Amino acid sequence: MTKPRARDLGIPFEGTTGKYNSITDVQGVTVGYATVIEDDSARTGVTILHPRGQEDHDPVFAAWFPFNGNGEMTGSAWVEEGGFLEGPIGITNTHSVGVVRDTIIQWQVTHSTIFQGWSCPLVTETADGWLNDINAFFVKPEHVMEALSSATSGPIAEGNVGGGTGMLCYEFKGGTGTSSRKLPEKFGGWTIGALAQTNFGRRFQLTIAGVPVGQHLKDDTIWTSGENPFKQDDGSLIVIIATDAPLLPHQLKRLAKRASLGMARTGSLGGNGSGDIFLAFSTANPNAALGDEQGVASIRALSNNFIDPLLISSAYATEEAIINSMIAAEDMTGHKGVRAKALPHQKLREILQQYNRMQ
Amino acid sequence: MTKPRARDLGIPFEGTTGKYNSITDVQGVTVGYATVIEDDSARTGVTILHPRGQEDHDPVFAAWFPFNGNGEMTGSAWVEEGGFLEGPIGITNTHSVGVVRDTIIQWQVTHSTIFQGWSCPLVTETADGWLNDINAFFVKPEHVMEALSSATSGPIAEGNVGGGTGMLCYEFKGGTGTSSRKLPEKFGGWTIGALAQTNFGRRFQLTIAGVPVGQHLKDDTIWTSGENPFKQDDGSLIVIIATDAPLLPHQLKRLAKRASLGMARTGSLGGNGSGDIFLAFSTANPNAALGDEQGVASIRALSNNFIDPLLISSAYATEEAIINSMIAAEDMTGHKGVRAKALPHQKLREILQQYNRMQ
Amino acid sequence: MTKPRARDLGIPFEGTTGKYNSITDVQGVTVGYATVIEDDSARTGVTILHPRGQEDHDPVFAAWFPFNGNGEMTGSAWVEEGGFLEGPIGITNTHSVGVVRDTIIQWQVTHSTIFQGWSCPLVTETADGWLNDINAFFVKPEHVMEALSSATSGPIAEGNVGGGTGMLCYEFKGGTGTSSRKLPEKFGGWTIGALAQTNFGRRFQLTIAGVPVGQHLKDDTIWTSGENPFKQDDGSLIVIIATDAPLLPHQLKRLAKRASLGMARTGSLGGNGSGDIFLAFSTANPNAALGDEQGVASIRALSNNFIDPLLISSAYATEEAIINSMIAAEDMTGHKGVRAKALPHQKLREILQQYNRMQ
Amino acid sequence: MTKPRARDLGIPFEGTTGKYNSITDVQGVTVGYATVIEDDSARTGVTILHPRGQEDHDPVFAAWFPFNGNGEMTGSAWVEEGGFLEGPIGITNTHSVGVVRDTIIQWQVTHSTIFQGWSCPLVTETADGWLNDINAFFVKPEHVMEALSSATSGPIAEGNVGGGTGMLCYEFKGGTGTSSRKLPEKFGGWTIGALAQTNFGRRFQLTIAGVPVGQHLKDDTIWTSGENPFKQDDGSLIVIIATDAPLLPHQLKRLAKRASLGMARTGSLGGNGSGDIFLAFSTANPNAALGDEQGVASIRALSNNFIDPLLISSAYATEEAIINSMIAAEDMTGHKGVRAKALPHQKLREILQQYNRMQ
Repeated sequence: MTKPRARDLGIPFEGTTGKYNSITDVQGVTVGYATVIEDDSARTGVTILHPRGQEDHDPVFAAWFPFNGNGEMTGSAWVEEGGFLEGPIGITNTHSVGVVRDTIIQWQVTHSTIFQGWSCPLVTETADGWLNDINAFFVKPEHVMEALSSATSGPIAEGNVGGGTGMLCYEFKGGTGTSSRKLPEKFGGWTIGALAQTNFGRRFQLTIAGVPVGQHLKDDTIWTSGENPFKQDDGSLIVIIATDAPLLPHQLKRLAKRASLGMARTGSLGGNGSGDIFLAFSTANPNAALGDEQGVASIRALSNNFIDPLLISSAYATEEAIINSMIAAEDMTGHKGVRAKALPHQKLREILQQYNRMQ
Repeated sequence: MTKPRARDLGIPFEGTTGKYNSITDVQGVTVGYATVIEDDSARTGVTILHPRGQEDHDPVFAAWFPFNGNGEMTGSAWVEEGGFLEGPIGITNTHSVGVVRDTIIQWQVTHSTIFQGWSCPLVTETADGWLNDINAFFVKPEHVMEALSSATSGPIAEGNVGGGTGMLCYEFKGGTGTSSRKLPEKFGGWTIGALAQTNFGRRFQLTIAGVPVGQHLKDDTIWTSGENPFKQDDGSLIVIIATDAPLLPHQLKRLAKRASLGMARTGSLGGNGSGDIFLAFSTANPNAALGDEQGVASIRALSNNFIDPLLISSAYATEEAIINSMIAAEDMTGHKGVRAKALPHQKLREILQQYNRMQ
Repeated sequence: MTKPRARDLGIPFEGTTGKYNSITDVQGVTVGYATVIEDDSARTGVTILHPRGQEDHDPVFAAWFPFNGNGEMTGSAWVEEGGFLEGPIGITNTHSVGVVRDTIIQWQVTHSTIFQGWSCPLVTETADGWLNDINAFFVKPEHVMEALSSATSGPIAEGNVGGGTGMLCYEFKGGTGTSSRKLPEKFGGWTIGALAQTNFGRRFQLTIAGVPVGQHLKDDTIWTSGENPFKQDDGSLIVIIATDAPLLPHQLKRLAKRASLGMARTGSLGGNGSGDIFLAFSTANPNAALGDEQGVASIRALSNNFIDPLLISSAYATEEAIINSMIAAEDMTGHKGVRAKALPHQKLREILQQYNRMQ
Repeated sequence: MTKPRARDLGIPFEGTTGKYNSITDVQGVTVGYATVIEDDSARTGVTILHPRGQEDHDPVFAAWFPFNGNGEMTGSAWVEEGGFLEGPIGITNTHSVGVVRDTIIQWQVTHSTIFQGWSCPLVTETADGWLNDINAFFVKPEHVMEALSSATSGPIAEGNVGGGTGMLCYEFKGGTGTSSRKLPEKFGGWTIGALAQTNFGRRFQLTIAGVPVGQHLKDDTIWTSGENPFKQDDGSLIVIIATDAPLLPHQLKRLAKRASLGMARTGSLGGNGSGDIFLAFSTANPNAALGDEQGVASIRALSNNFIDPLLISSAYATEEAIINSMIAAEDMTGHKGVRAKALPHQKLREILQQYNRMQ
């Protein structure tokens, strides 16, 4: 983790981060990766997030929001209906969602952690079909098991890792990014974190700190062996929002909605081909799913009157997680020789200075 | 209340009712009516429901479900977003929703009970344009005030009263009906009640206790001065579900959904022209909207694993409230001489006997 | 197909069926099965439905409705957002959704039928964990390929076949069922069909033709080696509705909603544990997804004023498909010796006669 | 219309506007206002939009999206269910929605333009309770009639007019604004327009052309006789999107969603108290609601593959309509002496120059 992150480059963001500026700043959350880079054409992987860590399988209140549902989030129907997320979250490439889903069930069977008697795991995706031979189905059950068992708290890797390995963002190299916000005590002292898998946006849209960065970087297009693959705003953005604030499912949906505004702060307006799908969960309220012998749980809930700082932080953390994914990403050559360049740090700094926006 | 209700006639229903077999069996709920019958063409009114009674304005958790949204439920956007219902519920005819809505605000201003600084009251409707001159806008602010201030607990009137005054149901006289269920202690002992304003369904569909009653009553069509107005399945069904079970908004939506199944148990399949819109709220969890000085409320929530008896009871109470509205309704002659007949009790009993379905 | 179907037994249903009383009465629709019965514990399978048959991959307008989203329907996010279903439908057991999904993509890659450049297939499920060792993951890619390639039009098998192989319905043996309605020419002459995978409902709820059949069949409980596994209303109901009527996505959602009323007509009220999830599509409007060189497609759309017969038929066909699945199902002994009995035909006829409901 | 608009001041926006940079650039759309300014405390009004002008009452395809549903949009349930908007749109203050709604029905009755036999008009609102005595209910039926009958095409007034009269935006004077985009012929040549009633946002959030303008204008707070009323992000944003592109209801929902991103481009992140509710409609496809004698309409529909320019333009036009509302607004002193200042044009230009963002 000696790579600079977006703030290290002097890019201004709103709000105060948690200790690691990571979704793992939310107590309990762990993240694991399996990065699958093989030969000339495997550039993919799996990301796993355990809401309460590997050992605690107590369901968490959750909600999703598909801003532009051109993608997949298995398990979302039960999250919407029941209000709980009952297991780990998987993020991978579009064509490997099935193997990740079924393998998570296998892992749950092995660990006896299936909550209801059956399992509909939450697995979501973005398409890495430019750098990765997505139709070769490189993700195997062992990769899923690796990501499930290697999840950690504390600082986590960003850029070309896990499910984000082969992604493109604003026609630069994208990948995985994270960020967090810690609210002042007067606003409850809650922590909120975002994890983004970034694979969306057209170059001309890229906006950082309000500056139309992409319009100054038009020449740095992806080098490919053939024509520019970007005809439309394809790709996708997945954002997972975690918080320790005691929010109920309908309130978590409000947080998930703000991820779309965090996306907008980086320039994209949600193209037709982009699966911009967001999930938010709360680690507060243990044992809410079971309750006592009569099924009644004593829980806490935050008044809507106090939710503004969390709504805002959801957008802020999403924005920074996206930019972090691009800052951490590195040049990659992949399937059929497509080469994706990383966002050039120095050039970016110069453009921001030109607009008086460097800190 | 000496009129017979559906159970009094021997019609079988599932489950055990509360004390009054009324939505007012849910502690705190009060219902008030203004019935507007004037001259030849005013056959309408207003129904008001106070979730916690007239004096307690603490918001209640709530959710709506528009099974067939060909109608109006003002205030539903905030119920959906914020999870709370912040004031009384109004039910009236389709073209008087506005006056009921604005007058409820006036009442809230007078009683200093506006929760957020502005108010978007929940007002819903069914169309009484066959018996009432709906375009004459007979409902006035004083009627709304009358219904607001006259609300009571205990037994409430059914049939041609309040918002249900001029309604038709399965081409018989419809109106207002109610019912409740009291769960056994082993299922939590919760109470759940339904209030229905019934103005829907085609004659041939009418089903009572599983018996195709309507197909035996084809001759008893409404007498009109001209042609049969029923070309399509127009009209609407409004159902309000109340419970004291500690359900969260996303769980209350599940209860509201079951009202559509209760409707189906009476035969209708939700015609295009029918606004079949349902709302559920819980009187549990006082002070959930405000919380403590940090905005945190200590509340109770029922595990989904214990919700089945409530889901089922929501459908059962809806079914019985609909039938009760028809059993209580009485013949009415209205606008332009249209005459609606009530469901004939004795004939109904005979048909049920024919199918071995009388108790 | 010499087995009797529900109508053959004299059970009354509303409406006129299509030629085969099958979803395949909708021109173009083909259905294929792979039935996986092996040793003592494999009782599962895969059902595939090609909306326009195996050779025509033109997307169809579609919409889903999760009445009780305790289940999975992958691909539904894009159906909701984009309005199109872009490939075949898979139905299997809950823990095999992933392998069916990824294998459908493999099949699409092989046949060059991926519409957008990536694929999020629609795969849905019900849980067969009583008769099948669901955690043994018996469904393999070759089963999916078999179901994909064996799909046919005309009469299709019902009962213990395909994804429905190991299912239970109202504590009897469930499975796969189908039905259709052909509207009179004055109502447009449209065809509408339903395919149901039935794995839901408690015995006491079972209602056929309005008769509380289940309450007369309490003794015929499933024999198991241990205790009755039915503590709650677990299981699920999947219904696919097809029509040739030119309905737009928001209208197809209205059809999908009516499947919940068709379910209610058989007695269930949608238990917490039941994933009651429905999809409707229209085979009308070829080339709607692509349009001309400017992207404009000339299509047809049915006025809402003419949709009632289709709404009603959606409920009717669902009801009959469910009952057909039970009538066709046969006794099965499965995993751990659990034995599920089929609904006894003769006894059913006697009960209906007792209520004067046999035709 | 000699007042400068945002582009006149040199503020950069993306895309090419239509002739008047107004929602009325979409052929057929007319907009009318009634501005109610009386004595010391009436600072409110009504805005009316006729989708096809006053004389053509053919329903239009439509969809809504409540980004943050802390507000009201009557009529939205039927738009969602049926896919059509069947009459004019009203926008007013929160506590006058009822009178506007019922008066629109009166107008429809008088003009015999009720489509279904009953009417649930679309009326939406933002709260002007700071400058206007919202509880005095100043909007009367005659104001609604005035706005209905005075609607015009061509250039329309902005700022302190109609429903926007007493609004505040980013703690400056807000109001009514509009903008449009005309796509190049290679993208279909479609026109898309936005009309915004702006009453949202905290000062520190105000962002124009990516520049954190609000953070440089902290001293220009509203002068009030007492304390700063802005404790939370109260207020609301209503946006109406019109287009002549042949979009179906589910596609129009996608346009409405992008209004939330247009809002984000001006800085707000959708506070709890803000009713950020958006509607989109298409004037294409006349006679889609009725069809021929069998109810079948021949219509056109745009492929999703060609929708990106419209999605983007919806966000762009929303952004510019919001800024236009602030540029056109003028200082206002209202109820209880609250004085709202307009955004200072010269100071704004200086700040943009400081960030190298003036054109």
